[in-house]
Amino acid sequence: MPYMSEDTLFAKIIRGDIPSYKIYEDDTTYAFLDIHPVTPGHVLVVSKSPAQFVWDLSEQDYSALMRTCQIIAKRLRAILDVPYVGEQIVGVDVPHAHVHVIPFSTAKEFRRVPDMNAEPDHDALETMAQKLRIEE
Amino acid sequence: MPYMSEDTLFAKIIRGDIPSYKIYEDDTTYAFLDIHPVTPGHVLVVSKSPAQFVWDLSEQDYSALMRTCQIIAKRLRAILDVPYVGEQIVGVDVPHAHVHVIPFSTAKEFRRVPDMNAEPDHDALETMAQKLRIEE
Repeated sequence: MPYMSEDTLFAKIIRGDIPSYKIYEDDTTYAFLDIHPVTPGHVLVVSKSPAQFVWDLSEQDYSALMRTCQIIAKRLRAILDVPYVGEQIVGVDVPHAHVHVIPFSTAKEFRRVPDMNAEPDHDALETMAQKLRIEE
Repeated sequence: MPYMSEDTLFAKIIRGDIPSYKIYEDDTTYAFLDIHPVTPGHVLVVSKSPAQFVWDLSEQDYSALMRTCQIIAKRLRAILDVPYVGEQIVGVDVPHAHVHVIPFSTAKEFRRVPDMNAEPDHDALETMAQKLRIEE
């Protein structure tokens, strides 16, 4: 069976079938808070294009995804009191092209692995989303 | 004193004042092997534009830097026998806009912190550079 992007968690989030703390959306990308953040303000930027890995995206869709990452990184720097904003492309968890944009203070903090079984702090996530959200 | 990119380690590498295991170069970017690799084949992609952080680059220079990252990632996938290629933007070490492109097999491996004081394995680096190099 071919890879079907419409089945992924992120495809459901983009469609609104699963709720998310949306930060930004445009024609080709969607950005929202990771509910298991490496640090507060950790944003996931996903492509609306069906591709398993970031590297499989067309040059145009890849460029659009990365452009949104820059918009988000600048937003994090402007709103949060952090010395650095980093980025991670890993791709081992959800088979849908996505990028992690993560505000941080130390390299050790940037490499922290969150507890994926922890109960999300929805109050903190909602407050953070309101601070970071970029209106169209 | 303003930030002077010509003083950074990476500026010296781009100019050829410090030797490097070059993989790819074009008008706006330069890619070479990290001599303290997270994994064999770990490539640094740097912008020729003077900016401390990736996020400070102009939209055009940022887009060019990211385009080279996609070229390198696809090259790593094509040449090396690895299931994943990841990316890290950290920026705490050298104040010159750069991106790490890292082939890996497990998320734990991707997050490994290399010993920056270890003697580089120049034979292995030279062999890897010959395998990965993209001719203009």
